[in-house]
Amino acid sequence: MEKMIYAGKAKQMWTTADDEILKVVYMDQATALNGKKKDQISGKGILNNHISSLIFEYLTRQGIENHFIKRISDTEELVKKVTILPLEMVTRNVAAGHFTTRFGVEEGKVFETPVEETYFKSDELDDPFMNNSQILALKIATKSEIEKMWDISRKVNSLLTELFKKMDLRLIDFKLEFGKLKDGEIVLADEFSPDNCRLWDMKDNAHMDKDVYRRDLGDLTIVYEEVLKRLEKVLTEDM
Amino acid sequence: MEKMIYAGKAKQMWTTADDEILKVVYMDQATALNGKKKDQISGKGILNNHISSLIFEYLTRQGIENHFIKRISDTEELVKKVTILPLEMVTRNVAAGHFTTRFGVEEGKVFETPVEETYFKSDELDDPFMNNSQILALKIATKSEIEKMWDISRKVNSLLTELFKKMDLRLIDFKLEFGKLKDGEIVLADEFSPDNCRLWDMKDNAHMDKDVYRRDLGDLTIVYEEVLKRLEKVLTEDM
Ligand SMILES: Nc1ncnc2c1ncn2[C@@H]1O[C@H](COP(=O)(O)OP(=O)(O)OP(=O)(O)O)[C@@H](O)[C@H]1O
Ligand SMILES: Nc1ncnc2c1ncn2[C@@H]1O[C@H](COP(=O)(O)OP(=O)(O)OP(=O)(O)O)[C@@H](O)[C@H]1O
Ligand SMILES: [Mg+2]
Ligand SMILES: [Mg+2]
Repeated sequence: MEKMIYAGKAKQMWTTADDEILKVVYMDQATALNGKKKDQISGKGILNNHISSLIFEYLTRQGIENHFIKRISDTEELVKKVTILPLEMVTRNVAAGHFTTRFGVEEGKVFETPVEETYFKSDELDDPFMNNSQILALKIATKSEIEKMWDISRKVNSLLTELFKKMDLRLIDFKLEFGKLKDGEIVLADEFSPDNCRLWDMKDNAHMDKDVYRRDLGDLTIVYEEVLKRLEKVLTEDM
Repeated sequence: MEKMIYAGKAKQMWTTADDEILKVVYMDQATALNGKKKDQISGKGILNNHISSLIFEYLTRQGIENHFIKRISDTEELVKKVTILPLEMVTRNVAAGHFTTRFGVEEGKVFETPVEETYFKSDELDDPFMNNSQILALKIATKSEIEKMWDISRKVNSLLTELFKKMDLRLIDFKLEFGKLKDGEIVLADEFSPDNCRLWDMKDNAHMDKDVYRRDLGDLTIVYEEVLKRLEKVLTEDM
């Protein structure tokens, strides 16, 4: 019997007949400011499920180990169950969002080498920013686990920067989550969608990601639809 | 002619006849919460000047390169002028203060390996916590400068942990600042006093540092006098 084991802000996780497989259900909810801003946006779940599925399939073809098995409906996909490492691994190619206010840097500043940041996944603590020394002292992850996650993040960054470039989009920054399979292997997990990255249109730097919702810049679904359309086009050409 | 070039929260920096030498004047001001709490505490300047001078002299004898030249009066010392690297290098042997609330850890938790944190010295930005990747991207310091500062910090930690142990004090955490001499060499600068470290009494973990002021636990000068007394005693025995 299928049982919901986790209801997140954007997705539900359900058990399946197979102990090692979970069903992800993408919902229509959008949140910002750690959940303080919250809205139902009809169609968002379908869009994120489609976008994330295509990106995970692409990453699989490029040799990136991940949790994704397959999309099974408009809002659902199957993934390998993992034990999530409670860290959000953020890569920034260009300064935007929190980074700009925290360090007094203008939005749009391009980094010579990407900035890498880790946040502790903890709703009670408001996802605090952490450095490696703190992660090790609190035994949240080991040195080799941290290195493995950055190793995969860097590969994802170069693969997706290239892919989005073909879609006339700049990959500004993104957040990844990782988990451990039953055998201990660390793989990319969660989702990759405009919910957890920033994409700027090549021609005018227009926001093509959740900042449209965070900053009330317009209709999120129109923007996500455009991202999906360009993604489908480039992936078809790629075949 | 002597000219004051900087009035900080606890010290003034004055020029001297020698271009490469500054005079530090310790004041009686105590601040906390990035300056939001502020008081005049008569005698504090003298105590910090005496304590910091003795500790820098001790570190010099132990081979730690630093800016200190000599104490010239109860509230004044001469130091080599440096260009301060705008980073506060914090080492934590035991969890206390901000660390405990930020990560939900109990005060007093002993780390197997010390935690190392860097904060960007910027009053406008409220001294934000930074990781190495951010420091490098914003070109605040180079990799080798960061390594050099941690190398010295680690030596200071082991030397002073030992020294304070002989004074029946536990060195819980401390903040160091570093600067560049004219020839580019990086040396320890600023001060080392109960203003920028935490010291707990070995017998009952009583606070023997600025937390007495931050948390309104009693008379700061009585506590600092006790630290100075024990320091003078152990340094005399050491000779
Ligand atoms: N393969 C997987 N196995 C187990 N859990 C996963 C897997 N992939 C993602 N998860 C977790 O499932 C949840 C997905 O839900 P959602 O993205 O809505 O969470 P959220 O509201 O962002 O909350 P959280 O702060 O926990 O991430 C996340 O907690 C995510 O870490
Ligand atoms: N050898 C040195 N040469 C030049 N500047 C120094 C030297 N040693 C310390 N300083 C700087 O002098 C100032 C000392 O003043 P004080 O400790 O009162 O500053 P503060 O109020 O803590 O402010 P800040 O946030 O700038 O540290 C600090 O800015 C410190 O970085
Ligand atoms: Mg999530
Ligand atoms: Mg200071």
